[in-house]
Amino acid sequence: MSTILDDLREAVGDSAVLVDPDVTRGYERDMMPTAPNGTALAVVLPGTVAEVQAVVRACAAAKVPIVPRGAGSGLSGAANAVDGCVVLAMTRMNAIVEIDQDNRVAVVQPGVVNLDLRAAVEKHGLFYPPDPSSYDWCTIGGNLSTNAGGLCCVKYGVTSDSVLGLEVVLADGELLRTGRRTVKGVAGYDLTKLFVGSEGTLGVITQATLALRPLPQAPGTTVAAFSALETAGEAVSRIVREGLVPSLMEIMDAASIAAVETHLKTELGAGRGCAALLLCQSDSGGEAAARELRAIEQVCRDAGADLVHTTFDPAEGSLLLAARRAVLTALEVYGALMTDDVCVPRTRIVELIAACEQVSAEVGLRVAVVGHAGDGNMHPTIVYDPDSADEFRRANVAFNAILAKGLELGGTVTGEHGIGKIKREWLEREVGPVAMRAHRAVKAAFDPENLFNPGSMFSMP
Amino acid sequence: MSTILDDLREAVGDSAVLVDPDVTRGYERDMMPTAPNGTALAVVLPGTVAEVQAVVRACAAAKVPIVPRGAGSGLSGAANAVDGCVVLAMTRMNAIVEIDQDNRVAVVQPGVVNLDLRAAVEKHGLFYPPDPSSYDWCTIGGNLSTNAGGLCCVKYGVTSDSVLGLEVVLADGELLRTGRRTVKGVAGYDLTKLFVGSEGTLGVITQATLALRPLPQAPGTTVAAFSALETAGEAVSRIVREGLVPSLMEIMDAASIAAVETHLKTELGAGRGCAALLLCQSDSGGEAAARELRAIEQVCRDAGADLVHTTFDPAEGSLLLAARRAVLTALEVYGALMTDDVCVPRTRIVELIAACEQVSAEVGLRVAVVGHAGDGNMHPTIVYDPDSADEFRRANVAFNAILAKGLELGGTVTGEHGIGKIKREWLEREVGPVAMRAHRAVKAAFDPENLFNPGSMFSMP
Repeated sequence: MSTILDDLREAVGDSAVLVDPDVTRGYERDMMPTAPNGTALAVVLPGTVAEVQAVVRACAAAKVPIVPRGAGSGLSGAANAVDGCVVLAMTRMNAIVEIDQDNRVAVVQPGVVNLDLRAAVEKHGLFYPPDPSSYDWCTIGGNLSTNAGGLCCVKYGVTSDSVLGLEVVLADGELLRTGRRTVKGVAGYDLTKLFVGSEGTLGVITQATLALRPLPQAPGTTVAAFSALETAGEAVSRIVREGLVPSLMEIMDAASIAAVETHLKTELGAGRGCAALLLCQSDSGGEAAARELRAIEQVCRDAGADLVHTTFDPAEGSLLLAARRAVLTALEVYGALMTDDVCVPRTRIVELIAACEQVSAEVGLRVAVVGHAGDGNMHPTIVYDPDSADEFRRANVAFNAILAKGLELGGTVTGEHGIGKIKREWLEREVGPVAMRAHRAVKAAFDPENLFNPGSMFSMP
Repeated sequence: MSTILDDLREAVGDSAVLVDPDVTRGYERDMMPTAPNGTALAVVLPGTVAEVQAVVRACAAAKVPIVPRGAGSGLSGAANAVDGCVVLAMTRMNAIVEIDQDNRVAVVQPGVVNLDLRAAVEKHGLFYPPDPSSYDWCTIGGNLSTNAGGLCCVKYGVTSDSVLGLEVVLADGELLRTGRRTVKGVAGYDLTKLFVGSEGTLGVITQATLALRPLPQAPGTTVAAFSALETAGEAVSRIVREGLVPSLMEIMDAASIAAVETHLKTELGAGRGCAALLLCQSDSGGEAAARELRAIEQVCRDAGADLVHTTFDPAEGSLLLAARRAVLTALEVYGALMTDDVCVPRTRIVELIAACEQVSAEVGLRVAVVGHAGDGNMHPTIVYDPDSADEFRRANVAFNAILAKGLELGGTVTGEHGIGKIKREWLEREVGPVAMRAHRAVKAAFDPENLFNPGSMFSMP
């Protein structure tokens, strides 16, 4: 074992190779409590592309698995260590290499924190849309590897919609450049989007060229309260059907509302029998935003909302959004969380939430549903006592029952968190044997020795 | 040879297997005059997925190459036959399977004509954005295989931005389903976008699930005339820099303007020393569109436009757009056309157009430039006498000189037409040896016998 450690130290310097178990343990897991993890041989923190190449070559020669990771905010165990692996923590490579204001392009290293990039481009009047909940600490490299979403997706798409090109260190240590700096281009296969969302199984992303947008206007916000889940769902369907495209459309069910009210000591309507809150924003600016939100208000009223309120005061809008963002924190008071991530056709959201209520009753655990109603991506969150093996077991039953329901409704088992190490069987169930063969063929083409994040997403024969 | 023909007839019925050379010849080429083509063994017109599977299995057993094609409107030779191949013409599979208005999704077979889909979804108040110039006769299958663009891309993206999922017949005849019906989803690799733009080299697309948008408002149109190319380019850069996102932004150079004036017997300003026309639209509707076009007007004036005119009369807007769309037809009066397709960063458009003028002078041939200024995708078009071997040679020199300039400016050798059979060396030059190895590994993973469109995009060893 000493040879590979020597090689790693030569590759990146002694101080960038961590082997103290008390230290390396902090790099062996992401935020998903139910995902298994192994023990790393070492954690390596490369500072340059050349160092990444040297590490990959050393690992390839010794046939040591490599698990790339960013900040570890993931919710699928995709960044969890496997036994005897080298964890390649990309956080030191955190330079914003370039912001090209005139072409609306940024070039960044993978360790840049999402919020840091947002802040840097905002100074140039530009906008990097993808905004996963962990945006104040997750990294762009992690966002790329999971194809992260967020609240903005309903209008601006997911991470892959903002990526023009990548640099990736391949299994043989060679540096692959994909894509381009131009906004259009069809020269060759779209390898860029193959790597985005591949969860570190095909190579190590060392640089990304990102497309930026004009900074939108400060948003106006509409909140609508419904006494029945069905009417909230009807409002979502009608908003989509009428061609309204808000820049954000979030839904919270009764369990989420109640938890947030307790946590923030605020009043959102649970006491008045509010079964669902719908939160919409428009960033179109001025009269256009006012018109969009008026139309959304009208749809909500027509669908049967008990209360509809619109504000163009940024502070009030932020407070409403903060209530939505506080749901998971608010739920943590009651126990450990298992957060699901199903995405269904937008017309099926109500059925999914209703099924979650039923699952909750069946397993006898609190299940709160929040989600990105605008694209059907729901996060039913199961609350359980982490010290009770029985509750943990029941939580898992609920977790899987909700995934099954998502598939039954024509949806997917993961809208934005990824497969990782917790949904491998579900990937197979969703895509079927032919697609699994295609996945394994692609994996073998890029990583014939199966050294990049082995066992994440699927296992090789 | 009779065995394979027997198998094909058994697979699709006698009448769907064409072997008369006078008939098959019409299926052996696309619209690119300089691309080589071979002679097909047969043209097969399957009517069902099962028939496609049977044809692929028969060809695989006999090791006969398969060249899938749509309507043949391509401009790269990607759909051109190779000697002894089966041309798989997908035009009979032209059903619009489903339009799901509430979820804004359409499911279509590959032979659906782009315009037919546009018209069908418009009845539901929906919009399928990709609009290549040939939209009134090209097929969705061809659009998918080339990742077609069009005039709308500046605001709505290219074909791949509108695709949620595919069904693809693989080399072993199995049917692969990629993607999903939901607007978000990250289960597994993004195989959907790997197939989009793969020019028929990885499988045969038999169905697509497409994301639709709300039908935009009727557009307002602004036209600006510039007496110097530089000032037009400066206007484009400033429009991008100021965060304006028109729904269309096209540029025509002096040679294009002159040709259209002659062809349409109209007056666009060439006689008054107009060096470039910029044509912009906004489909944001009402006051928002008026505000956007006023801002664009102001930028054009500030940049030095001689004349700026805005209209919200749909008929006048259509006339202006018709002038832009007439450029290639207008040029055909002067000879055969070789249309280039480079995409450069938006700040480099002027340099590209200036280089085209210089190339024109050097080779002694007319070179007219039109293009999608909003995304830097330019179509310099070289006019030559098809009966003159010398002019043909000089046209090729010009064609390649423009590609080289595009790369030099940080661009790509193809923005939307594809590599096909005419730019294989240029693909290698653009992406380099590591990326070429990655391309060949992907190709081998999906098509180990190299039977799908062999020699298009790149050759296998």
